Amino acid sequence: MNTNEMFSAVEIELKKQTARLDAPHTKSFYDMLTYHMGWTGAGAGSTATGKRVRPILVLLSASGCGADWRLALPAAAAVELVHNFSLAHDDIQDNSPKRRGRDAAWVKWGAPMAINVGDALFVLSNQAIMDLKKNFSAEVVVAAAEILHNTCLDLTRGQYLDMSYEGRSDLGVDDYWRMIGGKTSALIAACCHIGATLGDADEEKQQAYRSFGHYLGLAFQVQDDILGIWGDEKTTGKSAASDLIEKKNSLPVLIGLEKKGKFAKRWAQGAIAPDEIGEIARLLANEGGLLGAQDAAKQMTDLALSALRSANPQGEAGEMLLRLTKRLLGRQQ
Amino acid sequence: MNTNEMFSAVEIELKKQTARLDAPHTKSFYDMLTYHMGWTGAGAGSTATGKRVRPILVLLSASGCGADWRLALPAAAAVELVHNFSLAHDDIQDNSPKRRGRDAAWVKWGAPMAINVGDALFVLSNQAIMDLKKNFSAEVVVAAAEILHNTCLDLTRGQYLDMSYEGRSDLGVDDYWRMIGGKTSALIAACCHIGATLGDADEEKQQAYRSFGHYLGLAFQVQDDILGIWGDEKTTGKSAASDLIEKKNSLPVLIGLEKKGKFAKRWAQGAIAPDEIGEIARLLANEGGLLGAQDAAKQMTDLALSALRSANPQGEAGEMLLRLTKRLLGRQQ
Repeated sequence: MNTNEMFSAVEIELKKQTARLDAPHTKSFYDMLTYHMGWTGAGAGSTATGKRVRPILVLLSASGCGADWRLALPAAAAVELVHNFSLAHDDIQDNSPKRRGRDAAWVKWGAPMAINVGDALFVLSNQAIMDLKKNFSAEVVVAAAEILHNTCLDLTRGQYLDMSYEGRSDLGVDDYWRMIGGKTSALIAACCHIGATLGDADEEKQQAYRSFGHYLGLAFQVQDDILGIWGDEKTTGKSAASDLIEKKNSLPVLIGLEKKGKFAKRWAQGAIAPDEIGEIARLLANEGGLLGAQDAAKQMTDLALSALRSANPQGEAGEMLLRLTKRLLGRQQ
Repeated sequence: MNTNEMFSAVEIELKKQTARLDAPHTKSFYDMLTYHMGWTGAGAGSTATGKRVRPILVLLSASGCGADWRLALPAAAAVELVHNFSLAHDDIQDNSPKRRGRDAAWVKWGAPMAINVGDALFVLSNQAIMDLKKNFSAEVVVAAAEILHNTCLDLTRGQYLDMSYEGRSDLGVDDYWRMIGGKTSALIAACCHIGATLGDADEEKQQAYRSFGHYLGLAFQVQDDILGIWGDEKTTGKSAASDLIEKKNSLPVLIGLEKKGKFAKRWAQGAIAPDEIGEIARLLANEGGLLGAQDAAKQMTDLALSALRSANPQGEAGEMLLRLTKRLLGRQQ
């Protein structure tokens, strides 16, 4: 088992699944989709495609349960298509002009077209998961599809919470966990759960894989929040502390607000200018926002590693899952 | 078998399926969805819900093939949820402020929230179709889901074409059929196809049902186009000839443009004011737009009825399908 082989198999499967949209008379529509996937247009390439962490988690989870990872490729494509669908709509909803360093699809083709690109990606994810029928019984296909669909409902709930939090000043840490539980963690949990289902794991093992993904997703998001305020601009690739300027309800901020100290007072006063960032980030760190978030990240990481031990993935996939977890959660970017 | 019983069973099933979103902390999100479905908020009721033609077609097709229509209810809900998902996004994409006489969801809650409402409806449709597993084998569930997913890809293609046609003056009748084939007809074809699949019809019969739905959808859309220009405002409920003001690429217009006569000349000159409508509608009728579209509607209706004869639905469902077809295609509104 070789990571490069897995990555290129995922890319081939994604291209196969999305080729369903490649038809006469709708070529430009297909072009929008391949641009958003990172394959075509200015800046296409590995930075534009993203890391494809989710499909790899499906494949490693299936393999860890003893299945041939190649048989799980349609499910791997499905989760990555769901992820990309959510990004396409998210960029419109957040009015974010950039995605992975390139113009977002809505900037290039307008929101109406980009909504439709997101919708098509979502449909393609449904078609991809059904393609499992080539390798698995119809019962297993239905089980995997149900995990994916339930997860997508969680995604829409997380997205709703995220949007409804905007501009609110009464949010606490509980609200945070609820929101990222849907928005970030649900799909990562589903990747591991689907992989275990395809590996014919029993219910207990499936739940251990799911739990691993759940905490991995939470830890990952918390770390992302920390980097969004105190990360090194050069390594994160995004402007340092931009999360403060955007007044994002990240975990460090919510921990800081609960202190009701100087940070909370300044936060309530409204917009933050770029030249205030350094001072406000220091204020937040002094009032426990950094340490509190680091604690939470460590706690979630420990829970993820403990769930991974319960899942007890076999063979090379087991080592690779552990390595991937450590790399994701130890990342500087 | 009683139509009222069927309609109320559809409504109950739709409420059951959408109740998945009814959870603590996301109540307002659920309220947006029930508003869009026509159940809650100002103007709620049968006008706001729409006619629920699509779910009824699923049930009658299943019943016509000898199945108990009640077993097909999850699929009936699924197609109606797909329809409502597409309307939610369509209203944003078209910038249409009204839906069935009420403010569109995006007008009430903004486009970002309304995109998410559409996404949730789409997810719920996927969950609904999987619910067939309570009544059918996993193989049948997968077959029904695949028909639905393939149809949804056609919908996004039709939507793309519709948006890409905007402002173009070089379109012909072929472009029209391609667009409404995806946008209107694909889902109606899927309703009948899924119904026949649930009724365990053989491949040939499934295709006859599908073909019936396909032509029914085309005939319905052409008739809608005719009413959108020459319909009676009092009976259609929308301002007469608003399709001309919106410069919609409807079939009568495209037939008129192909004549390259006075109508085409006026159309190319740009915006149409309300006080010009009467004259331009007359011009279009004089140059064959009305007769040509009526001919097409008649042709599609004949093809639908012929396919229905081949499908040969049994019992009361057969009579009801014929009655529904005649009512839909003979409608004045």
